[in-house]
Amino acid sequence: MAADAVERAMRAAIAASVDVRGTTSPNPPVGCVLLDAEGHIAGVGATQPAGGSHAEVVALREAGERARGGTAVVTLEPCAHTGRTPACAQALREAGVAEVVHAVSDPNPQASGGAELLRAGGVEVHSGLLAEEVEKGPLRAWLHFVHTGRPHVTWKYAATLDGRSAAADGTSKWISSETSRNEVHRVRAAMDAIIAGTGTVLADNAQLTARDPDGNLLDRQPLRVVVGDRDLPADVRALDDAAETLRLPGGDPDAVLRALADRGVVDVLLEGGPTLAGAFWAAGRVDRVLAYVAPTLLGSGPAALGEAGVGSISQAWRLWIEETTMSGPDLRISAVPRDR
Amino acid sequence: MAADAVERAMRAAIAASVDVRGTTSPNPPVGCVLLDAEGHIAGVGATQPAGGSHAEVVALREAGERARGGTAVVTLEPCAHTGRTPACAQALREAGVAEVVHAVSDPNPQASGGAELLRAGGVEVHSGLLAEEVEKGPLRAWLHFVHTGRPHVTWKYAATLDGRSAAADGTSKWISSETSRNEVHRVRAAMDAIIAGTGTVLADNAQLTARDPDGNLLDRQPLRVVVGDRDLPADVRALDDAAETLRLPGGDPDAVLRALADRGVVDVLLEGGPTLAGAFWAAGRVDRVLAYVAPTLLGSGPAALGEAGVGSISQAWRLWIEETTMSGPDLRISAVPRDR
Ligand SMILES: NC(=O)c1ccc[n+]([C@@H]2O[C@H](COP(=O)([O-])OP(=O)(O)OC[C@H]3O[C@@H](n4cnc5c(N)ncnc54)[C@H](OP(=O)(O)O)[C@@H]3O)[C@@H](O)[C@H]2O)c1
Ligand SMILES: NC(=O)c1ccc[n+]([C@@H]2O[C@H](COP(=O)([O-])OP(=O)(O)OC[C@H]3O[C@@H](n4cnc5c(N)ncnc54)[C@H](OP(=O)(O)O)[C@@H]3O)[C@@H](O)[C@H]2O)c1
Repeated sequence: MAADAVERAMRAAIAASVDVRGTTSPNPPVGCVLLDAEGHIAGVGATQPAGGSHAEVVALREAGERARGGTAVVTLEPCAHTGRTPACAQALREAGVAEVVHAVSDPNPQASGGAELLRAGGVEVHSGLLAEEVEKGPLRAWLHFVHTGRPHVTWKYAATLDGRSAAADGTSKWISSETSRNEVHRVRAAMDAIIAGTGTVLADNAQLTARDPDGNLLDRQPLRVVVGDRDLPADVRALDDAAETLRLPGGDPDAVLRALADRGVVDVLLEGGPTLAGAFWAAGRVDRVLAYVAPTLLGSGPAALGEAGVGSISQAWRLWIEETTMSGPDLRISAVPRDR
Repeated sequence: MAADAVERAMRAAIAASVDVRGTTSPNPPVGCVLLDAEGHIAGVGATQPAGGSHAEVVALREAGERARGGTAVVTLEPCAHTGRTPACAQALREAGVAEVVHAVSDPNPQASGGAELLRAGGVEVHSGLLAEEVEKGPLRAWLHFVHTGRPHVTWKYAATLDGRSAAADGTSKWISSETSRNEVHRVRAAMDAIIAGTGTVLADNAQLTARDPDGNLLDRQPLRVVVGDRDLPADVRALDDAAETLRLPGGDPDAVLRALADRGVVDVLLEGGPTLAGAFWAAGRVDRVLAYVAPTLLGSGPAALGEAGVGSISQAWRLWIEETTMSGPDLRISAVPRDR
């Protein structure tokens, strides 16, 4: 198959997988594009919610007989293991696919062997195409989960250029721009869960839902997780029926993440506040930072990040800045921790 | 003259003017390129230290007879007024220059009229080429000075992503990267003066000089200005003989700027600390922010900006982010205040 057709197909497969982020856990959000023997798109699929079909099966269903002699382009190595659904490698073989190109090899010992099974059936297999893009993008949280057994934690915060999340009198509406706030709702919708401390829920009466710019709830709502011992008034918005809410007392980050992993949560947005975020940092349990930095200065007021286990400059948490973009007037910074 | 040759010449004139920043005040750092009648560079000049030649005269001297019938490309409208040096417009006319292209028109009522004087002598005059680049770049401070009577203040600071300038125990070596620190020395060398509070001088024993990466003093040193009432030990580095030092008690930003304007200071780097920077903000006397944001998090420790006259979020100092670039691993942000 022509290389450019395959790369275009992989980009389409990535896009399909991005669309289902937040709906597939504990399964990975995978995308698959089936090209027929002439290189035309015959089917597109993405992972269905747990218990439903895998991406390859969805794409095969659409392609029907056109799959024969064609190429399956998948963001993750097709699985070789028959669980709630039949093995995808087997299904691709039976459909007569001539070639499989996947981005990321399956790191899951339980599921790997797909490439072998395909090759044994005479299917040509290539791996690695756009692998980095997939690893850092749609499959990042799932790969982290497979490697560590812990959900992937993205700490999102909004602050001023001088690192404050509110003014001296506590006012903070709005630190970040409308563009950034709307984007955060889209980020939330792609997550399995949102974590906040009781402090944030009590102070802001935050609903912790994903909403459109008009304030209407989006179709999919992540699990709301409120961490801390304090009782919450029953009429607090984080406990309304807009989404499911999990209350976790205690507050040890590892205990929180274990409880979430047990529920099949893979991709988590830690929304603060500063105290809870500091506790996650101190425990080394932040895997990515998503900062919305507003071009404003306050000079006083509460800090965006509280006590994070750092006493001296040599103990600072060091990051790599992955990407800096503008989000309206704000600076949007994506960064990942380096080894301390 | 061909437009691309003139634009190339203007870029060379801008570069020549950037090279003399910090050496010309109270005169503007201007650059001039003389093209001969065929469009070849015949002379390049930049403003000499106060009392010395203007850029046009330096370029004319190099060009000699080749100026006749040529084009003078200048970052600022040639002056029409005879002061310590003869009027440049007159000199260009006498040299037989056929055309003058300048970026910025002279805002100084005392000096303007250069274009008229040239036109009256039969010289073709065009203005506005790359004007924005010059206004925001090499002539920014001087234009500000002409319009307001106050030196232009750039507040430079280094902080972590969470806005801290040191860890909880006071350690701060080094918040920003070597790349950023070296860049700051180059920025200092292009300034007329560096301002710091007694707090910074006492806490850090900062020398406030411009040095090369090996720590050697650069040829040109800005005036060091230490603001505050406290006595400084005689052996403090800010008082050594590496550069001139001005002590200003009191600390009212307007009084500081007046004292500097009286000395012909046009372009100032405010290096903090947080208390003095806050006072300048509260007085509305910061004209640009140059932030070196390190990709680190501390969660505790002193803030980069102290009390700045903001009590509530609606009073926040709002900025436009002009440019964000990487400086080694750090984020370098250039921003200008918007009206409050
Ligand atoms: N800028 C932003 O992006 C952003 C985001 C969120 C919130 N905020 C602001 O943050 C403010 C609230 O600050 P906050 O620090 O009180 O909020 P918080 O971090 O949400 O809540 C702190 C509380 O969480 C509980 N907690 C759970 N696990 C903990 C642990 N491991 N260590 C310590 N405490 C733990 C404790 O409450 P119990 O006593 O109940 O156990 C603690 O008092 C609000 O004003 C809000 O506007 C800003
Ligand atoms: N991150 C950075 O970029 C950066 C830059 C510089 C300094 N720092 C850090 O800042 C720390 C020093 O902080 P600081 O706030 O004490 O330093 P500072 O702002 O340099 O000095 C404060 C002192 O300046 C005097 N002052 C002058 N004008 C004033 C005014 N209008 N209002 C109030 N005070 C005025 C006062 O001293 P008198 O009592 O003598 O009048 C005051 O105590 C150091 O640890 C240093 O490392 C960080």
